[in-house]
Amino acid sequence: MGDGVAPGLHDGGMAPKVAVVLSGCGFLDGSEIHEAVLTLMHLQRHGLETVCVAPSGPQADVIDHRRRAPDTGAGRDILTESARIARGRITDLAELTAAAVDAVALPGGFGAAKNLSDFASQGAAGSVRPELLRLLREVHAAKKPIAALCIAPAVVALALGRTAAPRLTIGRDADTAAALVAAGARHVECAVDDCVVDADNRIVTTPAYMFDARVDEVATGIGKAIDALAGMLREAV
Amino acid sequence: MGDGVAPGLHDGGMAPKVAVVLSGCGFLDGSEIHEAVLTLMHLQRHGLETVCVAPSGPQADVIDHRRRAPDTGAGRDILTESARIARGRITDLAELTAAAVDAVALPGGFGAAKNLSDFASQGAAGSVRPELLRLLREVHAAKKPIAALCIAPAVVALALGRTAAPRLTIGRDADTAAALVAAGARHVECAVDDCVVDADNRIVTTPAYMFDARVDEVATGIGKAIDALAGMLREAV
Repeated sequence: MGDGVAPGLHDGGMAPKVAVVLSGCGFLDGSEIHEAVLTLMHLQRHGLETVCVAPSGPQADVIDHRRRAPDTGAGRDILTESARIARGRITDLAELTAAAVDAVALPGGFGAAKNLSDFASQGAAGSVRPELLRLLREVHAAKKPIAALCIAPAVVALALGRTAAPRLTIGRDADTAAALVAAGARHVECAVDDCVVDADNRIVTTPAYMFDARVDEVATGIGKAIDALAGMLREAV
Repeated sequence: MGDGVAPGLHDGGMAPKVAVVLSGCGFLDGSEIHEAVLTLMHLQRHGLETVCVAPSGPQADVIDHRRRAPDTGAGRDILTESARIARGRITDLAELTAAAVDAVALPGGFGAAKNLSDFASQGAAGSVRPELLRLLREVHAAKKPIAALCIAPAVVALALGRTAAPRLTIGRDADTAAALVAAGARHVECAVDDCVVDADNRIVTTPAYMFDARVDEVATGIGKAIDALAGMLREAV
């Protein structure tokens, strides 16, 4: 992608490939933009290859981010809007197989709870979009690591809670934490500049903008989460 | 903005305030999203206060970033779309005075050349949006520093080229560099992970996505540019 060649984690081989699952472009109706960019930056800093993916189909809604109110204009497509964050290089989630990637990263934003799942309206009774549910279950079964930021751990809880009881964080929000627990996950409180590692399940989470934090604080937490993910990829058999 | 208190550059005083001028949300018709986020991150890392601003009014166009083709849907408003990057906290550029800020930062993306100016169609004969032209000339006259990324140095060249002959970089693109020189600027070649400092004019530039680079390479160059900007703010009288 660039002029330079990144040192891969596998000597003499291809760099591990990480799917970054986007859900639109903007934290009120899609991916949280800062979290998505910082995820890409930290993954590429580790020499990992990133593949942006998103589901195709209409967004649950379009929100005017300035007025924090529903936009009265035309609807928007999740994949098309996600392409803005991906600088145009994006794959339809339906075309991605678990075998094609070494890990999955899920930035947050309301898109994770409205476009990737219906957690925003259904809570612990919600469900994950079928193509993402399949991907997460196959990736987890193959012991490939998963990183989830902000509200995206709710998607992981809905997908894997009943079978794997993963240890996750969404920071310190009691109501959201209770919903994760109701979905079968175990919740661990965490500061914005830190992350929670479930080594057994190979799942890393960080609260990011679940706090009203500065960008550099969010970047520190995401950096630690991606460090942990990269560590899991290095120790992969 | 967050739970923590950032150490300000001025002991015992308010942190210097930097206006980040956005031009939409997406590199083909607005601000380059990665550059905007990394600018905010590096400014806040220095304990600087950031104020996102954008002009109000229709975007020059709306581009489908996946197909790289004009979008046939509704038009979009520059300020409203920019609010996505700013997480809703944004000011109309027309309401910002040079007296209210200590520095200005301009991320790139085609929005700088289509919404903040008409450089994309007019080149060296182009002009800068009046409210931004006024801001840049007043900020420069007050010896407050300016940082410009990617194609945004073209906006600085159009605003200040004839009067200040600033030393700028847009990387290594010969045609764009020639247009900057025709607008009165002096061009200096620069790698993606570096920046050019014009100490006399207090203007810092870095090429960012003028190269087909990795996010972490772009982040390094932006980090150096913002380091230089923060240094100028520290030495400010």
